Parts: sequence; structure tokens; C-alpha cells
Amino acid sequence: MPAAKRARILTPQAEDFPRWYQDVLNKAELADNGPVRGTMVIRPYGYGLWERMQAEMDGRIKRAGAENAYFPLLIPQSYITKESEHIEGFIPELAVVTHGGGKELEEALVVRPTSETVIGQYMAKWIQSYRDLPLLLNQWANVVRWEVRPRVFLRTTEFLWQEGHTAHATREAAAAYAAKILHEVYADFMVNVLAIPLHVGIKPPNDRFAGAINTLACEAMMRDGKALQMGTSHELGQNFAEAFGILYLDGDNNQQHVWTTSWGTSTRMVGGLIMAHGDDDGLRVPPALAHIQAVVIGVGDGGAVEDAARRLVADLGAHGVRVRLDDRSGVPLGRRITDWEVKGVPVRVEVGPRELADSEVTVVRRDTGEKQRVSLAAASAAIAKLMDRIQGDMLDAATEFRDSNTTDTTTLDEVVDAAATGFAKVPWRVVAGDDAEAVLVEQGVSVRCIQRANGTIPSNEDEPDLVAYCARSY
Amino acid sequence: MPAAKRARILTPQAEDFPRWYQDVLNKAELADNGPVRGTMVIRPYGYGLWERMQAEMDGRIKRAGAENAYFPLLIPQSYITKESEHIEGFIPELAVVTHGGGKELEEALVVRPTSETVIGQYMAKWIQSYRDLPLLLNQWANVVRWEVRPRVFLRTTEFLWQEGHTAHATREAAAAYAAKILHEVYADFMVNVLAIPLHVGIKPPNDRFAGAINTLACEAMMRDGKALQMGTSHELGQNFAEAFGILYLDGDNNQQHVWTTSWGTSTRMVGGLIMAHGDDDGLRVPPALAHIQAVVIGVGDGGAVEDAARRLVADLGAHGVRVRLDDRSGVPLGRRITDWEVKGVPVRVEVGPRELADSEVTVVRRDTGEKQRVSLAAASAAIAKLMDRIQGDMLDAATEFRDSNTTDTTTLDEVVDAAATGFAKVPWRVVAGDDAEAVLVEQGVSVRCIQRANGTIPSNEDEPDLVAYCARSY
Repeated sequence: MPAAKRARILTPQAEDFPRWYQDVLNKAELADNGPVRGTMVIRPYGYGLWERMQAEMDGRIKRAGAENAYFPLLIPQSYITKESEHIEGFIPELAVVTHGGGKELEEALVVRPTSETVIGQYMAKWIQSYRDLPLLLNQWANVVRWEVRPRVFLRTTEFLWQEGHTAHATREAAAAYAAKILHEVYADFMVNVLAIPLHVGIKPPNDRFAGAINTLACEAMMRDGKALQMGTSHELGQNFAEAFGILYLDGDNNQQHVWTTSWGTSTRMVGGLIMAHGDDDGLRVPPALAHIQAVVIGVGDGGAVEDAARRLVADLGAHGVRVRLDDRSGVPLGRRITDWEVKGVPVRVEVGPRELADSEVTVVRRDTGEKQRVSLAAASAAIAKLMDRIQGDMLDAATEFRDSNTTDTTTLDEVVDAAATGFAKVPWRVVAGDDAEAVLVEQGVSVRCIQRANGTIPSNEDEPDLVAYCARSY
Repeated sequence: MPAAKRARILTPQAEDFPRWYQDVLNKAELADNGPVRGTMVIRPYGYGLWERMQAEMDGRIKRAGAENAYFPLLIPQSYITKESEHIEGFIPELAVVTHGGGKELEEALVVRPTSETVIGQYMAKWIQSYRDLPLLLNQWANVVRWEVRPRVFLRTTEFLWQEGHTAHATREAAAAYAAKILHEVYADFMVNVLAIPLHVGIKPPNDRFAGAINTLACEAMMRDGKALQMGTSHELGQNFAEAFGILYLDGDNNQQHVWTTSWGTSTRMVGGLIMAHGDDDGLRVPPALAHIQAVVIGVGDGGAVEDAARRLVADLGAHGVRVRLDDRSGVPLGRRITDWEVKGVPVRVEVGPRELADSEVTVVRRDTGEKQRVSLAAASAAIAKLMDRIQGDMLDAATEFRDSNTTDTTTLDEVVDAAATGFAKVPWRVVAGDDAEAVLVEQGVSVRCIQRANGTIPSNEDEPDLVAYCARSY
């Protein structure tokens, strides 16, 4: 282990948080800007994080009963205009294909910004009777929304996401499924895998998805005190069913419109992961997510060190640890350590001649920096167990950070003050209505979500005694 | 089990193979046509097949050392024109975005038809020295190529695929990696998971990928005797390295252009699966691929049947079988059986009162139609074992079909005759050159691949004693 402090490679968070974020993207080799403004290239280490997010989310989506399918990227412009609120929400964001196969097209095509319209068309074809309901679909896809102020992972012209689309016989069934997705898929994944604590609630009416009658959201606090919307689940009422004629024959042989939902999470979660857990040394990845949970570094030359390192890697793999060997003997040790720290690998194991002489290795936690010597024989079991402890500690630390940066407030002025550095918790009635909203907007603050006093999700914003979380946001 | 033969729901293959194919797509609920001509909607059962293909391929790609990444969908038109052969090959197939964010764009954007150009740009940025080589990348993505004569899964305007892109220090290293992918990823997957026998070889010069110096291909026979190209792996020489300035500093401190490869397989493989294994009752899915390997059907009403069926499903799951329960008591038994036959689920298990009285179940193989009674206690272990037997038998049957529809030929006339119903095997010199090619083209026949006499891949088409397979093709 190098005695001297390694050179600073990132702008400190306290000095310039946006620059710190950019530095992490570059130094951890997560992503690059794409050639077209607002697009991004996701590099292998960043894509590895996204693949693990996909795998964990996909299992939960399937357990919630939804099946994956795939709908086309290119949507006739006429589809988008069928639901009036939807088109108003999306017109400024569309990318339009006017030429194909060397000719000008008769009807322009829109690159999907989301797929309610095209999926609505096929739901109308596939659903005949109540026996076909619920119809529970999901797709993993790319979407394009023209971004005026892009930022990699957080707001990009093209992003990767999953979008769920379901149809139900009743409003109640649709509402229950939208809530099930928010709780059992999104919140369960974000809290237990990403180790990011959430506030779940509904969005104020003016912040709903275009065409929704209710939008449920997961909101998380980043380490600059701003909020990030991590995922949303929408009740679409019968708006799309009416626009696309999605009808079913009920038990009494009457034609009824279905009730639909849609719900999405995206590569934005990678941005959330970086900003919720990162520190001045780089990313910190929670073990449950990490595609590389531990890295084994051979310190110094010599066959004994190399052999021991290789054996340990094999043994860690056998203990279910996702492990990588760093055998870059030509690269200085300090540089190798910095590389893995900035990438946020949860545990670093150093195997050196001094440790080996004692039949030990040095185990270093990325989240706390804590070092310990562990006997070589017991190392794999100890490290496998350590993963659970780190996972729990990271969630605790993030929860503690969020709660200590949240202020109970009772007036608009207090909300604005508190939101300068964190979240303001306030009775919903204080920030409801056009006048209050105008004050918040002017200060760059918004209502992130509305909850019941016990933290559960209200059915609408007119319930009594609701609480709102307000913050600046990404 | 119904004694009477169930109603025919598909056009027989012998009567009209293309209509049979369409019927399978519809009845097995694999895919629909999309709203834009040439696009497709992949329905959950079809997407389930694709997900399994992705999982099996992705593991092999990673074991071959490549890492996944993601590059943007929208490519500046100027990129595409940098490599002259590449642009000539792709211009008639491009979809062009001219408007974004409500404005006409200064430079039109191309929806990626493939990503050599954009990935080349980033390789140039990321590669500095020989230490950065080889750079082994893969991405799972959608691409768009305007199709004049579309057919679902086989030729679609948008399709899903993986595209690998690698950079190497030498021509030999690049050639070796292109061959490694063809053998260890593509052929291994297609033969051992899809149970589809292949001929691997090189393409004739006039059928290479646009910009390639050598194209390796996997060719399979469909049940109408036509060939389907299942995957290709290209040596791109230094063409893209020169166009995009992909340079590295070698061990002697000299700047060198890298040697690149690209390789791809797509949702076209789903079409190949259907046409290589399907019969007049529908799809037949090999067990190693199937996302539903066995379906358990409760025959008749009654709690005992239902309980036994549920217990069997749990037990099969515990034996590692991917199993589904069909408990649609409102649907006639014949219809339920037909549904699973047309979907090609490898094994159907019927649990009825008669069987239960003997503590047995009826196990039916989809590939052969063979039925047997099996003791309930031993059923799961027997069915798990049966999967391997079916997998082997399906590969044997497909190989036997291919070989019995392949004719050894020595003249152009014989080639054309043989290709009317299957493959013609012929000395390469007989079909090499412009004159021979003109004859073949006129007859709708092409050289599918060129091999050495022992079935291995030649380094180029000028080696002596090469053999060509010729056929009509998709």
C-alpha cells in the first residue's frame, strides 16, 4: 500500500458538483458524449452497471406478471396526434424521419419518444374480451427525445429504458397494478439493490405524464441535496383506450374501454447511482448491483504473489463473488488502486509478499476506506459476508444523509430556504395551487411528490393531511 | 387425450411454404406486422425465444473476451460517407432524420443501419498504444435498413441484433478473432442450442459486407431446401481504420493503423428457427433454447388432477425444467393441446384421472409425437433427461434432412438443377467468375459459402481444391 496520499484526480464535490460528475464519467470510463448533441456513448464499465440494473429489474417485472415484447422504433406521425394531451407534451421533443430508402416518405415517421400510441394500436387488436385482461407488457428499448440542456445519463436525446404498458378491466385494477410496479419492482430494486432510499408518492396535477390521470413517482436525494426522479408509474385512465379504440366485451356482453397504465425507468438510474453514492474519490457501487464486486491486486512481482492472487480469485468466484484479477504488472500500484477506487468496486483485496508471509491478505472497503488483514484461508468467506454488510451500511449512510438534509417546514419561505441545500417537507396545502407554485418555480424549486403522513401513496391529491417533499431537481 | 385428429390450423408446408410460415407467425403468436411497412411487432412468445437467444449468445460473447457497450442510434450523415464502399452499400437502405426538436437540422442524421462508422470514431479516441489492443466491443441494439421486400424476422426494416466491433494490432490477430467468433460463438450456439447444422465458410468476393476484405458466414438449410445466412463475421482490414484514423503506437514507437472486424447475428435467427424445425403442426423448439420446455395440462376437472398438476410443475421446476402450467379449465382440451403444439413446446405432460388412478402421467414429445406413460414419482427426472435426448434427436433430424437434400455436382447445370430443391455441393472453380455467376443469378441461385474439402474455412478463395455450397436463399 502506498504511504503517500495519491494525487487528486477528481474535482471535489464541494467545489463544483457538476464538474465532479463529469470527472467521474470520464475517469471511471462510464460514458462519453455522442457525436450528435445530447446523445451518449455508454462505455463497457457503465454498460456493465446498466446490464445489472436490467437483470435485477427484469426479474422483478416478470415476477409482477408482465411479459417482454418489442414494438417498432418508427411510429407514423398520425399515431402520436391521436391523444391530444400526449401530442402537446411531446411535440417539441420529437425526431422526425422524412426520408427512407432513398425517397421522401408519404407520411413522416416519428422516432418513438415513448410507445403508448403504437402499443395502444396493438392492444386494440389483441384484446377481445375480459378473458384477455389484464394484458401486461414490457419492453426494453431506446427512445429519442430532443434535449435542449443535455447531461449524460440524466437527460439525453437518446436513452435506454424499460417501458411497461398494461390494460385492465377496471380503474381500480389499473391503479393497483401501477402501485404494485412502483412498490414491488421500482422501490424494491432501488432500495435493496441500488441502496438508494426513496420517497414514493404522487405528482402534483401539473407535473403528470402527458395523458395520465395520475402519476406515481420515486424520488431520491443526490449528494448535492437535489432530487432525482428515479422512476414513474402512470394511471392513464381511459384516455388511450378511447383514442385507439381499445375495447373489451365484459361478462354481460357489453363493450367497455379498458383502463391502461404505463411505467418506466431508464439509464437515468446510472446517473442517480453516481450522484447518490459517489464521493471525492469517485463512484461507490453497492455490492448487490456491482458487476465487479471485488478486485484482487497482486502487489509487487513474483510468482508466489501471482499464484496466490489467482487462487484467491478462483476461490472468491466459487463463493459467489463477482471478482476480477488486476494483473497489470506494468502499471504503478498507486494508479491501479486509483483506477478501482474511481470505478467504485466495493472491495479491493491486496495480495503482497508481506501479507503472504503471514498467510494473510489486506481487504479494503471502498465505501468507508476501512482496511483489515484477513487470513488467506478465511478470506473468501469473509469477503462474501462483507458484501452484505457493505450493502446495508451504504443504504444506512444514504438514508442518514438524506434525512439530515431534510427540513420540516410550514411556510413557503421556509420551503424555499430549505430547498437551497436539501429537501423541504411541508403540508401539501402550503404548496398547492397556482400562486404557491409560481413562487416555487421562480426559485427553481418544485414539489417532488405528495404522500400521506405515514409515507404511503394517496389515491389523489385531495385527501386530507397530505405531506409534500419539495426540492431543486435534475 | 382426444381420439379424433384435431382440425388443421396451418397451411401444410408442401402446399405453400411461405403461407405456412405466415400461419405459424400468427397462430403461435410470434409476431405481427408493424404499422410502418417492413417493421414488426415481436409478441411475448416470439420475444421469449429471442431473449433466450440473447442470453446464450451473450454468455459466449463474454467468454470470447468482448465487453458490451452502447453507441448512439443517430449518426451524422457525414460519418457514413467516410468509407466509400460502405456508403455505396448502404445508401439505398437508409432512414434519414431531417427534423429534431421542432426544427430542421443543420446536418441530416442517419438511423444506424450498422455501427462501424460511429464505433470507428470512438476507437480512434480510445486507442493510443498497443497496450490498448485488442479492443473487443459488442452491442445489442436495433438497426434500420429500408426493406423493399420485407418478411417478418427474415428481412425487416427494423431488426434487433448484436454487432461486435474489434480492433487488433495485426491482420492475423484480426482474422483469428473473426474466426473465433464464427466458431466459438455463432456455430457453437446455432448447432448446440438451436440444433441447426451449419456450413461455415467464406463468401465469394462479390457478396462481402460493404467495406470488408473477407466475410465468414454460417449457412443453414430451411425445410423448403433454401439457405438462410444465420450470421456473419467480417475482416474489415484497415479500411475503417484509415477512414476514421484509428491509430496505435507500436512497440517501436511507430504509428500504425489497426485492423478491425465486425460480426453480427439478428432476430433473423428466429425466422431460421421456425423454418429449420417447423412442421405442419407448427413450431418445434429445441429444449436447450425453449423458454418453456414443458407444459403440464390438467385433463378434466377435479381437485385431485389440479393438485397433482401443480405439484408436478413445482417438482419439474426443482429439476431445472422451465415449465408452465396450463390451467385454462374453460378452454376445450383439443384447443389447449393445439396451442402448445403450434408454439412448439418440446414436451407436453397430460395429467388426467385415468393416469392418476395408475399414479402415472402421459408425456408427449413435440418433435416426434411419441407418447409414453411415466410413473408420477419418476416423471420429473425422466422429463429432465428427455430434454437432452430431444435436443440430440432434433439436431440429428435436421442434419439428416440437410444431407439428404444436398447433391454432389460438377457442372453449372447440375448446380442449378440441385438448387431447385436443396443445396448443391460443387468444386468452387466451377462456379467462380463472372460468367458462372451470371448463370446462377439468372436462376435465382447463389454461392452460399466456400469451404476447404474438410469443411474448414479457407483464408481466401484462391486456395486450391475449395468446395462451394450453392442454393436458393432467403
